[in-house]
Amino acid sequence: MAEDGKIKRVSIVISKGSLEGVYPGLIMANGARMEGIEASIFFTFFGLDAVTKKRMKKLKVATVGNPAMHMPTLLGMLPGMSAFATSMMKKEIEKLDIPPVDEFIEMFHDAGGELYVCKATVELFHLNKEDFCDEVDAILTVGQFYEKSAGAQIIFT
Amino acid sequence: MAEDGKIKRVSIVISKGSLEGVYPGLIMANGARMEGIEASIFFTFFGLDAVTKKRMKKLKVATVGNPAMHMPTLLGMLPGMSAFATSMMKKEIEKLDIPPVDEFIEMFHDAGGELYVCKATVELFHLNKEDFCDEVDAILTVGQFYEKSAGAQIIFT
Amino acid sequence: MAEDGKIKRVSIVISKGSLEGVYPGLIMANGARMEGIEASIFFTFFGLDAVTKKRMKKLKVATVGNPAMHMPTLLGMLPGMSAFATSMMKKEIEKLDIPPVDEFIEMFHDAGGELYVCKATVELFHLNKEDFCDEVDAILTVGQFYEKSAGAQIIFT
Repeated sequence: MAEDGKIKRVSIVISKGSLEGVYPGLIMANGARMEGIEASIFFTFFGLDAVTKKRMKKLKVATVGNPAMHMPTLLGMLPGMSAFATSMMKKEIEKLDIPPVDEFIEMFHDAGGELYVCKATVELFHLNKEDFCDEVDAILTVGQFYEKSAGAQIIFT
Repeated sequence: MAEDGKIKRVSIVISKGSLEGVYPGLIMANGARMEGIEASIFFTFFGLDAVTKKRMKKLKVATVGNPAMHMPTLLGMLPGMSAFATSMMKKEIEKLDIPPVDEFIEMFHDAGGELYVCKATVELFHLNKEDFCDEVDAILTVGQFYEKSAGAQIIFT
Repeated sequence: MAEDGKIKRVSIVISKGSLEGVYPGLIMANGARMEGIEASIFFTFFGLDAVTKKRMKKLKVATVGNPAMHMPTLLGMLPGMSAFATSMMKKEIEKLDIPPVDEFIEMFHDAGGELYVCKATVELFHLNKEDFCDEVDAILTVGQFYEKSAGAQIIFT
Protein backbone atom coordinates (compact mmCIF):
# COMPACT_ATOMS: atom_id res chain seq x y z
CA MET A 1 0.00 0.00 0.00
CA ALA A 2 1.36 3.42 -0.93
CA GLU A 3 1.76 6.11 1.74
CA ASP A 4 -1.49 7.77 0.77
CA GLY A 5 -3.26 4.44 1.31
CA LYS A 6 -4.00 3.94 -2.37
CA ILE A 7 -4.03 0.32 -3.44
CA LYS A 8 -1.04 -0.30 -5.67
CA ARG A 9 -1.08 -4.08 -5.97
CA VAL A 10 -3.74 -6.79 -5.67
CA SER A 11 -3.19 -10.51 -5.37
CA ILE A 12 -6.42 -12.28 -6.30
CA VAL A 13 -7.06 -15.92 -5.38
CA ILE A 14 -9.58 -17.84 -7.51
CA SER A 15 -10.65 -21.03 -5.75
CA LYS A 16 -13.88 -22.01 -7.52
CA GLY A 17 -14.42 -23.57 -10.93
CA SER A 18 -17.97 -22.55 -11.80
CA LEU A 19 -18.49 -19.72 -14.26
CA GLU A 20 -19.96 -17.47 -11.57
CA GLY A 21 -17.08 -18.49 -9.28
CA VAL A 22 -14.38 -17.48 -11.76
CA TYR A 23 -15.69 -14.20 -13.21
CA PRO A 24 -15.66 -12.06 -10.04
CA GLY A 25 -11.92 -12.68 -9.58
CA LEU A 26 -11.18 -12.05 -13.27
CA ILE A 27 -13.21 -8.84 -13.27
CA MET A 28 -11.54 -7.57 -10.09
CA ALA A 29 -8.07 -8.44 -11.40
CA ASN A 30 -8.69 -6.89 -14.78
CA GLY A 31 -10.36 -3.83 -13.23
CA ALA A 32 -7.20 -3.31 -11.21
CA ARG A 33 -4.96 -3.43 -14.31
CA MET A 34 -7.24 -0.93 -16.06
CA GLU A 35 -6.49 1.51 -13.19
CA GLY A 36 -2.76 0.94 -13.36
CA ILE A 37 -2.80 -1.24 -10.24
CA GLU A 38 -0.41 -4.23 -10.36
CA ALA A 39 -2.37 -7.47 -10.34
CA SER A 40 -1.75 -11.18 -10.12
CA ILE A 41 -4.12 -14.14 -9.94
CA PHE A 42 -3.34 -17.31 -7.99
CA PHE A 43 -5.53 -20.24 -9.05
CA THR A 44 -6.10 -22.87 -6.39
CA PHE A 45 -8.41 -25.86 -5.87
CA PHE A 46 -11.24 -25.99 -8.44
CA GLY A 47 -10.17 -22.56 -9.67
CA LEU A 48 -7.47 -24.35 -11.68
CA ASP A 49 -10.13 -25.23 -14.25
CA ALA A 50 -10.04 -21.62 -15.45
CA VAL A 51 -6.48 -22.02 -16.78
CA THR A 52 -6.57 -25.73 -17.66
CA LYS A 53 -6.55 -26.06 -21.46
CA LYS A 54 -9.13 -28.86 -21.59
CA ARG A 55 -11.58 -27.14 -19.27
CA MET A 56 -11.26 -23.36 -19.51
CA LYS A 57 -13.74 -23.07 -22.38
CA LYS A 58 -16.27 -25.35 -20.70
CA LEU A 59 -16.90 -23.73 -17.32
CA LYS A 60 -20.54 -23.99 -16.24
CA VAL A 61 -22.99 -22.10 -14.06
CA ALA A 62 -24.13 -23.98 -10.93
CA THR A 63 -27.94 -24.23 -11.00
CA VAL A 64 -28.35 -25.98 -7.68
CA GLY A 65 -27.16 -24.89 -4.26
CA ASN A 66 -27.56 -21.20 -5.07
CA PRO A 67 -30.98 -19.84 -4.07
CA ALA A 68 -30.03 -16.55 -5.75
CA MET A 69 -30.46 -18.29 -9.10
CA HIS A 70 -34.21 -18.07 -8.34
CA MET A 71 -34.68 -21.56 -9.70
CA PRO A 72 -36.39 -24.42 -7.82
CA THR A 73 -33.92 -27.15 -6.89
CA LEU A 74 -35.81 -29.80 -8.80
CA LEU A 75 -35.74 -27.66 -11.94
CA GLY A 76 -32.06 -26.80 -11.46
CA MET A 77 -31.25 -30.50 -11.37
CA LEU A 78 -32.72 -31.32 -14.75
CA PRO A 79 -30.06 -32.51 -17.17
CA GLY A 80 -29.36 -29.61 -19.50
CA MET A 81 -30.44 -26.92 -17.08
CA SER A 82 -26.87 -26.00 -16.13
CA ALA A 83 -25.96 -25.86 -19.83
CA PHE A 84 -28.96 -23.61 -20.43
CA ALA A 85 -28.11 -21.23 -17.57
CA THR A 86 -24.48 -21.23 -18.72
CA SER A 87 -25.46 -20.30 -22.24
CA MET A 88 -27.72 -17.51 -20.94
CA MET A 89 -25.03 -16.07 -18.69
CA LYS A 90 -22.42 -16.22 -21.45
CA LYS A 91 -24.71 -14.24 -23.76
CA GLU A 92 -25.36 -11.59 -21.13
CA ILE A 93 -21.67 -11.33 -20.31
CA GLU A 94 -20.85 -10.95 -24.00
CA LYS A 95 -23.34 -8.10 -24.29
CA LEU A 96 -21.31 -6.22 -21.65
CA ASP A 97 -18.18 -6.65 -23.76
CA ILE A 98 -16.75 -8.97 -21.13
CA PRO A 99 -14.81 -11.66 -23.02
CA PRO A 100 -15.09 -15.43 -22.51
CA VAL A 101 -12.77 -16.85 -19.83
CA ASP A 102 -9.94 -17.91 -22.16
CA GLU A 103 -9.83 -14.55 -23.95
CA PHE A 104 -10.17 -12.71 -20.66
CA ILE A 105 -7.10 -14.47 -19.33
CA GLU A 106 -5.13 -13.70 -22.49
CA MET A 107 -6.17 -10.04 -22.30
CA PHE A 108 -5.26 -9.81 -18.61
CA HIS A 109 -1.86 -11.37 -19.29
CA ASP A 110 -1.20 -9.05 -22.25
CA ALA A 111 -1.99 -6.11 -19.95
CA GLY A 112 0.84 -7.17 -17.63
CA GLY A 113 -1.17 -9.28 -15.21
CA GLU A 114 0.57 -12.27 -13.65
CA LEU A 115 -0.97 -15.75 -13.51
CA TYR A 116 0.05 -18.44 -11.05
CA VAL A 117 -1.27 -21.88 -10.13
CA CYS A 118 -1.06 -23.54 -6.72
CA LYS A 119 1.51 -26.33 -6.49
CA ALA A 120 -0.39 -28.44 -3.95
CA THR A 121 -3.50 -28.41 -6.14
CA VAL A 122 -1.50 -29.28 -9.26
CA GLU A 123 -0.29 -32.36 -7.41
CA LEU A 124 -3.70 -33.12 -5.92
CA PHE A 125 -5.28 -33.27 -9.37
CA HIS A 126 -2.25 -34.95 -11.02
CA LEU A 127 -1.66 -32.12 -13.49
CA ASN A 128 1.47 -30.86 -15.23
CA LYS A 129 2.68 -27.48 -16.50
CA GLU A 130 1.63 -28.57 -20.01
CA ASP A 131 -2.00 -28.93 -18.93
CA PHE A 132 -2.24 -25.17 -18.45
CA CYS A 133 -2.64 -22.39 -20.99
CA ASP A 134 0.52 -20.55 -22.04
CA GLU A 135 -0.36 -17.47 -20.02
CA VAL A 136 0.36 -19.24 -16.72
CA ASP A 137 3.67 -17.78 -15.54
CA ALA A 138 4.57 -20.28 -12.84
CA ILE A 139 3.49 -22.94 -10.38
CA LEU A 140 3.93 -21.57 -6.86
CA THR A 141 3.89 -22.98 -3.35
CA VAL A 142 1.78 -21.13 -0.80
CA GLY A 143 4.99 -19.68 0.65
CA GLN A 144 6.00 -18.30 -2.76
CA PHE A 145 2.50 -16.91 -3.18
CA TYR A 146 2.95 -14.87 0.01
CA GLU A 147 6.32 -13.58 -1.25
CA LYS A 148 4.75 -12.47 -4.54
CA SER A 149 1.97 -10.80 -2.53
CA ALA A 150 4.33 -8.42 -0.70
CA GLY A 151 2.71 -4.98 -0.64
CA ALA A 152 -0.51 -6.34 -2.11
CA GLN A 153 -4.09 -6.68 -0.98
CA ILE A 154 -4.89 -10.39 -1.00
CA ILE A 155 -8.47 -10.98 -2.21
CA PHE A 156 -9.70 -14.57 -1.92
CA THR A 157 -12.69 -15.20 -4.19
CA MET B 1 -3.93 0.89 8.08
CA ALA B 2 -2.80 3.19 10.88
CA GLU B 3 0.86 3.28 11.94
CA ASP B 4 0.22 0.95 14.85
CA GLY B 5 -1.25 -1.54 12.41
CA LYS B 6 -4.78 -1.17 13.71
CA ILE B 7 -7.45 -1.65 11.08
CA LYS B 8 -9.10 1.68 10.43
CA ARG B 9 -11.20 0.92 7.37
CA VAL B 10 -12.74 -2.23 5.85
CA SER B 11 -14.17 -2.64 2.39
CA ILE B 12 -16.41 -5.71 2.38
CA VAL B 13 -17.49 -7.39 -0.86
CA ILE B 14 -20.71 -9.47 -0.77
CA SER B 15 -20.95 -11.72 -3.82
CA LYS B 16 -23.53 -14.34 -2.81
CA GLY B 17 -27.29 -14.07 -2.58
CA SER B 18 -28.21 -16.84 -0.14
CA LEU B 19 -29.04 -15.90 3.43
CA GLU B 20 -25.91 -17.63 4.76
CA GLY B 21 -23.90 -15.94 1.99
CA VAL B 22 -25.06 -12.44 2.91
CA TYR B 23 -24.96 -12.46 6.72
CA PRO B 24 -21.20 -12.97 7.25
CA GLY B 25 -20.42 -9.81 5.27
CA LEU B 26 -23.15 -7.81 7.02
CA ILE B 27 -21.97 -8.98 10.43
CA MET B 28 -18.32 -8.16 9.66
CA ALA B 29 -19.24 -4.75 8.25
CA ASN B 30 -21.50 -3.88 11.15
CA GLY B 31 -19.01 -5.25 13.69
CA ALA B 32 -16.45 -2.86 12.22
CA ARG B 33 -18.76 0.17 12.62
CA MET B 34 -19.46 -0.84 16.23
CA GLU B 35 -15.69 -0.53 16.86
CA GLY B 36 -15.43 2.84 15.17
CA ILE B 37 -13.82 1.32 12.08
CA GLU B 38 -14.92 2.91 8.77
CA ALA B 39 -16.82 0.38 6.68
CA SER B 40 -18.29 0.07 3.24
CA ILE B 41 -20.00 -2.83 1.49
CA PHE B 42 -19.72 -3.44 -2.25
CA PHE B 43 -22.45 -5.76 -3.56
CA THR B 44 -21.54 -7.72 -6.68
CA PHE B 45 -22.96 -10.68 -8.64
CA PHE B 46 -25.73 -12.49 -6.72
CA GLY B 47 -24.94 -10.34 -3.69
CA LEU B 48 -27.04 -7.60 -5.32
CA ASP B 49 -30.16 -9.42 -4.12
CA ALA B 50 -29.42 -8.16 -0.60
CA VAL B 51 -30.10 -4.55 -1.63
CA THR B 52 -32.67 -5.16 -4.39
CA LYS B 53 -36.08 -3.99 -3.14
CA LYS B 54 -38.01 -6.94 -4.57
CA ARG B 55 -35.64 -9.57 -3.20
CA MET B 56 -33.97 -8.36 -0.01
CA LYS B 57 -36.76 -9.64 2.25
CA LYS B 58 -36.88 -13.01 0.52
CA LEU B 59 -33.32 -14.33 0.73
CA LYS B 60 -33.18 -18.10 1.33
CA VAL B 61 -30.87 -20.64 2.89
CA ALA B 62 -29.30 -23.11 0.44
CA THR B 63 -30.20 -26.63 1.54
CA VAL B 64 -28.27 -28.47 -1.16
CA GLY B 65 -24.59 -28.23 -2.02
CA ASN B 66 -23.59 -27.52 1.58
CA PRO B 67 -22.72 -30.70 3.51
CA ALA B 68 -22.38 -28.58 6.65
CA MET B 69 -26.19 -28.26 6.67
CA HIS B 70 -26.12 -31.90 7.87
CA MET B 71 -29.04 -32.67 5.60
CA PRO B 72 -29.12 -35.47 3.02
CA THR B 73 -29.19 -34.10 -0.54
CA LEU B 74 -32.45 -35.83 -1.35
CA LEU B 75 -34.09 -34.28 1.70
CA GLY B 76 -32.61 -30.86 0.99
CA MET B 77 -34.15 -30.95 -2.48
CA LEU B 78 -37.72 -31.40 -1.31
CA PRO B 79 -39.86 -28.42 -2.24
CA GLY B 80 -40.35 -26.38 0.89
CA MET B 81 -37.16 -27.55 2.56
CA SER B 82 -35.26 -24.38 1.75
CA ALA B 83 -38.19 -22.33 3.04
CA PHE B 84 -38.17 -24.41 6.23
CA ALA B 85 -34.41 -24.02 6.79
CA THR B 86 -34.72 -20.30 6.01
CA SER B 87 -37.48 -19.86 8.56
CA MET B 88 -35.44 -21.78 11.17
CA MET B 89 -32.31 -19.69 10.57
CA LYS B 90 -34.26 -16.43 10.67
CA LYS B 91 -35.70 -17.38 14.05
CA GLU B 92 -32.29 -18.23 15.47
CA ILE B 93 -30.78 -15.04 14.09
CA GLU B 94 -33.60 -13.02 15.61
CA LYS B 95 -32.94 -14.60 19.01
CA LEU B 96 -29.41 -13.16 18.84
CA ASP B 97 -30.85 -9.68 18.25
CA ILE B 98 -29.43 -9.73 14.73
CA PRO B 99 -31.98 -7.92 12.53
CA PRO B 100 -33.42 -9.17 9.22
CA VAL B 101 -31.37 -8.21 6.14
CA ASP B 102 -33.36 -5.09 5.21
CA GLU B 103 -33.27 -3.67 8.75
CA PHE B 104 -29.61 -4.64 9.11
CA ILE B 105 -28.76 -2.62 6.01
CA GLU B 106 -30.72 0.37 7.27
CA MET B 107 -28.98 0.16 10.65
CA PHE B 108 -25.56 -0.13 9.03
CA HIS B 109 -26.26 2.88 6.83
CA ASP B 110 -27.55 4.94 9.76
CA ALA B 111 -24.31 4.13 11.59
CA GLY B 112 -22.32 5.74 8.79
CA GLY B 113 -21.63 2.64 6.72
CA GLU B 114 -21.42 3.09 2.95
CA LEU B 115 -23.26 0.86 0.47
CA TYR B 116 -22.27 0.42 -3.16
CA VAL B 117 -23.37 -1.85 -5.99
CA CYS B 118 -21.22 -3.13 -8.84
CA LYS B 119 -21.90 -1.43 -12.19
CA ALA B 120 -21.10 -4.47 -14.33
CA THR B 121 -23.53 -6.62 -12.36
CA VAL B 122 -26.25 -3.97 -12.52
CA GLU B 123 -25.93 -4.11 -16.30
CA LEU B 124 -25.64 -7.90 -16.37
CA PHE B 125 -28.96 -8.28 -14.56
CA HIS B 126 -30.64 -5.33 -16.37
CA LEU B 127 -31.28 -3.39 -13.17
CA ASN B 128 -31.61 0.35 -12.47
CA LYS B 129 -30.84 2.59 -9.52
CA GLU B 130 -34.58 2.53 -8.66
CA ASP B 131 -34.47 -1.24 -8.14
CA PHE B 132 -32.27 -0.80 -5.08
CA CYS B 133 -33.19 0.27 -1.57
CA ASP B 134 -32.64 3.92 -0.66
CA GLU B 135 -29.57 3.15 1.45
CA VAL B 136 -27.46 2.36 -1.65
CA ASP B 137 -25.13 5.36 -2.02
CA ALA B 138 -23.85 4.76 -5.55
CA ILE B 139 -23.24 2.38 -8.42
CA LEU B 140 -19.47 1.96 -8.82
CA THR B 141 -17.16 0.49 -11.43
CA VAL B 142 -14.48 -1.87 -10.17
CA GLY B 143 -11.95 0.93 -10.62
CA GLN B 144 -14.01 3.26 -8.43
CA PHE B 145 -14.34 0.47 -5.88
CA TYR B 146 -10.54 0.32 -5.59
CA GLU B 147 -10.40 4.11 -5.16
CA LYS B 148 -12.96 3.96 -2.34
CA SER B 149 -10.94 1.14 -0.78
CA ALA B 150 -7.79 3.25 -0.31
CA GLY B 151 -6.37 2.49 3.12
CA ALA B 152 -8.88 -0.31 3.68
CA GLN B 153 -8.72 -4.05 4.17
CA ILE B 154 -10.67 -5.59 1.31
CA ILE B 155 -12.66 -8.63 2.53
CA PHE B 156 -14.37 -10.65 -0.21
CA THR B 157 -17.16 -12.80 1.21
CA MET C 1 2.67 -5.13 6.92
CA ALA C 2 6.40 -4.49 7.33
CA GLU C 3 8.00 -1.42 5.74
CA ASP C 4 9.27 -3.46 2.79
CA GLY C 5 5.72 -4.59 2.14
CA LYS C 6 6.37 -8.19 3.17
CA ILE C 7 3.40 -9.91 4.71
CA LYS C 8 4.15 -10.50 8.38
CA ARG C 9 0.76 -11.59 9.69
CA VAL C 10 -2.33 -13.22 8.16
CA SER C 11 -5.76 -13.52 9.70
CA ILE C 12 -7.65 -16.26 7.88
CA VAL C 13 -11.43 -16.59 8.13
CA ILE C 14 -12.95 -20.03 7.43
CA SER C 15 -16.69 -19.75 6.84
CA LYS C 16 -17.58 -23.03 5.11
CA GLY C 17 -17.94 -26.52 6.52
CA SER C 18 -17.35 -28.72 3.50
CA LEU C 19 -13.99 -30.46 3.14
CA GLU C 20 -13.11 -28.38 0.08
CA GLY C 21 -14.31 -25.28 1.93
CA VAL C 22 -12.03 -25.87 4.92
CA TYR C 23 -8.75 -27.01 3.34
CA PRO C 24 -7.86 -23.83 1.40
CA GLY C 25 -7.90 -21.78 4.61
CA LEU C 26 -5.93 -24.41 6.53
CA ILE C 27 -3.34 -24.69 3.76
CA MET C 28 -2.94 -20.91 3.50
CA ALA C 29 -2.69 -20.54 7.27
CA ASN C 30 -0.20 -23.36 7.62
CA GLY C 31 1.80 -22.18 4.59
CA ALA C 32 2.14 -18.82 6.31
CA ARG C 33 3.51 -20.40 9.52
CA MET C 34 6.01 -22.43 7.46
CA GLU C 35 7.39 -19.10 6.17
CA GLY C 36 7.62 -17.57 9.62
CA ILE C 37 4.53 -15.43 9.03
CA GLU C 38 2.25 -15.03 12.07
CA ALA C 39 -1.09 -16.68 11.43
CA SER C 40 -4.47 -17.00 13.06
CA ILE C 41 -7.68 -18.65 11.91
CA PHE C 42 -11.13 -17.31 12.80
CA PHE C 43 -13.88 -19.91 12.31
CA THR C 44 -17.32 -18.50 11.58
CA PHE C 45 -20.69 -19.83 10.36
CA PHE C 46 -20.43 -23.38 9.00
CA GLY C 47 -16.64 -23.19 9.32
CA LEU C 48 -17.12 -23.97 13.03
CA ASP C 49 -17.54 -27.63 12.07
CA ALA C 50 -13.78 -27.81 11.47
CA VAL C 51 -13.07 -27.32 15.19
CA THR C 52 -16.19 -28.93 16.65
CA LYS C 53 -15.18 -32.20 18.31
CA LYS C 54 -18.18 -34.18 17.05
CA ARG C 55 -17.84 -33.01 13.46
CA MET C 56 -14.22 -32.23 12.62
CA LYS C 57 -13.42 -35.82 11.58
CA LYS C 58 -16.56 -36.11 9.46
CA LEU C 59 -16.35 -33.17 7.03
CA LYS C 60 -17.62 -34.07 3.57
CA VAL C 61 -17.09 -33.00 -0.02
CA ALA C 62 -20.10 -31.30 -1.66
CA THR C 63 -21.01 -33.25 -4.80
CA VAL C 64 -23.84 -31.00 -5.94
CA GLY C 65 -23.77 -27.30 -6.63
CA ASN C 66 -20.16 -27.37 -7.82
CA PRO C 67 -19.89 -27.91 -11.59
CA ALA C 68 -16.11 -28.13 -11.18
CA MET C 69 -16.65 -31.57 -9.63
CA HIS C 70 -17.37 -32.68 -13.22
CA MET C 71 -20.22 -34.81 -11.95
CA PRO C 72 -23.81 -34.67 -13.27
CA THR C 73 -26.20 -33.29 -10.65
CA LEU C 74 -28.32 -36.43 -10.65
CA LEU C 75 -25.26 -38.58 -9.99
CA GLY C 76 -23.97 -36.21 -7.31
CA MET C 77 -27.27 -36.56 -5.47
CA LEU C 78 -27.14 -40.30 -5.10
CA PRO C 79 -26.91 -41.33 -1.46
CA GLY C 80 -23.33 -42.32 -0.83
CA MET C 81 -21.86 -40.20 -3.61
CA SER C 82 -20.69 -37.48 -1.24
CA ALA C 83 -19.12 -40.15 0.98
CA PHE C 84 -17.38 -41.61 -2.07
CA ALA C 85 -16.03 -38.25 -3.26
CA THR C 86 -14.97 -37.47 0.30
CA SER C 87 -13.08 -40.73 0.59
CA MET C 88 -11.37 -40.11 -2.77
CA MET C 89 -10.31 -36.59 -1.84
CA LYS C 90 -9.04 -37.69 1.56
CA LYS C 91 -6.84 -40.33 -0.10
CA GLU C 92 -5.41 -37.83 -2.57
CA ILE C 93 -4.78 -35.29 0.16
CA GLU C 94 -3.02 -37.93 2.24
CA LYS C 95 -0.73 -38.75 -0.69
CA LEU C 96 0.47 -35.13 -0.63
CA ASP C 97 1.35 -35.51 3.05
CA ILE C 98 -1.42 -33.09 3.95
CA PRO C 99 -2.90 -34.34 7.23
CA PRO C 100 -6.59 -34.88 8.03
CA VAL C 101 -8.38 -31.79 9.37
CA ASP C 102 -8.05 -32.64 13.08
CA GLU C 103 -4.32 -33.37 12.81
CA PHE C 104 -3.81 -30.34 10.60
CA ILE C 105 -5.33 -28.11 13.26
CA GLU C 106 -3.17 -29.67 15.97
CA MET C 107 -0.05 -29.20 13.83
CA PHE C 108 -0.94 -25.59 13.06
CA HIS C 109 -1.51 -24.87 16.74
CA ASP C 110 1.76 -26.54 17.75
CA ALA C 111 3.53 -24.33 15.21
CA GLY C 112 2.28 -21.25 17.03
CA GLY C 113 -0.87 -20.63 14.99
CA GLU C 114 -3.84 -19.12 16.83
CA LEU C 115 -7.37 -20.51 16.57
CA TYR C 116 -10.51 -18.51 17.31
CA VAL C 117 -14.23 -19.13 16.92
CA CYS C 118 -16.89 -16.51 16.25
CA LYS C 119 -19.07 -15.68 19.27
CA ALA C 120 -22.24 -14.93 17.28
CA THR C 121 -22.02 -18.28 15.49
CA VAL C 122 -21.38 -20.14 18.74
CA GLU C 123 -24.64 -18.67 20.04
CA LEU C 124 -26.48 -19.21 16.75
CA PHE C 125 -25.72 -22.93 16.84
CA HIS C 126 -26.16 -23.25 20.64
CA LEU C 127 -22.60 -24.44 21.22
CA ASN C 128 -20.25 -24.13 24.20
CA LYS C 129 -16.50 -23.87 24.67
CA GLU C 130 -16.48 -27.61 25.54
CA ASP C 131 -17.84 -28.51 22.12
CA PHE C 132 -14.59 -27.38 20.51
CA CYS C 133 -11.23 -29.11 20.30
CA ASP C 134 -8.60 -28.09 22.83
CA GLU C 135 -6.61 -26.11 20.27
CA VAL C 136 -9.25 -23.36 20.13
CA ASP C 137 -7.69 -20.43 22.01
CA ALA C 138 -10.76 -18.26 22.50
CA ILE C 139 -14.26 -17.29 21.44
CA LEU C 140 -14.11 -13.78 19.96
CA THR C 141 -16.63 -11.13 18.96
CA VAL C 142 -16.19 -9.58 15.52
CA GLY C 143 -14.76 -6.49 17.22
CA GLN C 144 -12.13 -8.59 19.03
CA PHE C 145 -11.36 -10.33 15.74
CA TYR C 146 -10.49 -6.96 14.18
CA GLU C 147 -8.26 -6.12 17.17
CA LYS C 148 -6.40 -9.43 16.79
CA SER C 149 -6.05 -8.69 13.06
CA ALA C 150 -4.06 -5.48 13.59
CA GLY C 151 -1.21 -5.44 11.06
CA ALA C 152 -2.53 -8.55 9.33
CA GLN C 153 -3.90 -9.38 5.92
CA ILE C 154 -7.46 -10.61 6.43
CA ILE C 155 -8.25 -13.48 4.05
CA PHE C 156 -11.88 -14.62 4.02
CA THR C 157 -12.19 -18.14 2.57
